[in-house]
Amino acid sequence: MKRYVPFRKGEIVSEAENSRASTRASVGARRNPETEAAVLQAAEELLREQGYAALTMEAVCKRARAGKATLYRWWPSRAHLVLALVSRSKQEMALPATGTLRGDLTAYFDDLLARWRGDGGALPIGPLVRVLYVEAADNAELGAALLEERRERWQLLDHILAAAAARGEVSHRLTIDRAKQVTMALPIYLLMIGQLPAPGETAALVADILPALA
Amino acid sequence: MKRYVPFRKGEIVSEAENSRASTRASVGARRNPETEAAVLQAAEELLREQGYAALTMEAVCKRARAGKATLYRWWPSRAHLVLALVSRSKQEMALPATGTLRGDLTAYFDDLLARWRGDGGALPIGPLVRVLYVEAADNAELGAALLEERRERWQLLDHILAAAAARGEVSHRLTIDRAKQVTMALPIYLLMIGQLPAPGETAALVADILPALA
Repeated sequence: MKRYVPFRKGEIVSEAENSRASTRASVGARRNPETEAAVLQAAEELLREQGYAALTMEAVCKRARAGKATLYRWWPSRAHLVLALVSRSKQEMALPATGTLRGDLTAYFDDLLARWRGDGGALPIGPLVRVLYVEAADNAELGAALLEERRERWQLLDHILAAAAARGEVSHRLTIDRAKQVTMALPIYLLMIGQLPAPGETAALVADILPALA
Repeated sequence: MKRYVPFRKGEIVSEAENSRASTRASVGARRNPETEAAVLQAAEELLREQGYAALTMEAVCKRARAGKATLYRWWPSRAHLVLALVSRSKQEMALPATGTLRGDLTAYFDDLLARWRGDGGALPIGPLVRVLYVEAADNAELGAALLEERRERWQLLDHILAAAAARGEVSHRLTIDRAKQVTMALPIYLLMIGQLPAPGETAALVADILPALA
């Protein structure tokens, strides 16, 4: 397995890395949206064509016509690219507001499971979520990035559960964090054992989650 | 990554494999208990010393003084060795019979989580369970072996839930299979995110599982 040398904020740059600095300097302090789109597009295409095993940083650079320094600066490993794809998908989701926890969770999981399965020809996000759980266990840097996404950008479920708690639909014995764990445990478990609910089975899933929150 | 050529029942043996047949013939139709003990001991030692990444079939052969053919015949991959260690641990567990679902699940998870954590210096089984979930997703042969273990040997939770259902402690809307999924989802999820309950936290875990079964 190839080892990548990520650029990290504040890291002392070795001479070998420094020789790449001219490319890196052109990146600037923010990601270039066009480069980001090209990189994520390349990663998605490679995943569709050959799966995660074939997703290499080299192949992404080549297909996206991006410099290595640029790539490593913003995505220190291929798992970070996977995280970016998962994150992009989650940020396309809308906050449901049906007025009930059952309604909100049904709408949330209808959308989330469709993305995990890759309904309608979309890139299946479920296998990527699996990759993140697997890799984050051995990769502290990825774990930290995942935590940051959860805290800053993946907040739909927090909002759904907080609104439900305010309506008295979530047991007082559960903190919002624990309620999130209880809500996500069964879907993640079904993802891990390869038994994701099919379209039309969301209601049955939610029916098995709700009692754990009440 | 090295590719292993497993021996399977009824498989036509290639010439290269056939040249190993003299060793294999000595294995017989059943595992030799002494060889099995030596192999599992070697696998356990290697895992303790260097973790799963360093667990190779070669290293196990060498340390156990076992022939390659013997090893591959009974454990087609290193993940099968991990499965054997998990299985051995599960088979040491006793069936609780406290008379209540809460009591039985508390006893069951007290024991299981202690094994997952590796309390008292035992080999931590949790990371091995994680490996199995990860590898089984891409390895149909391992998936089949795992299913067989579940069906034939890992039946404590079936018994606990069936007894509870007979006492009216499990909702009629849940089949025993679904009740098992609902029971294991939260512990497995906590294992996956690296937040296993500590000793003394089993009661809180069970308190969050029971409502989902009622």
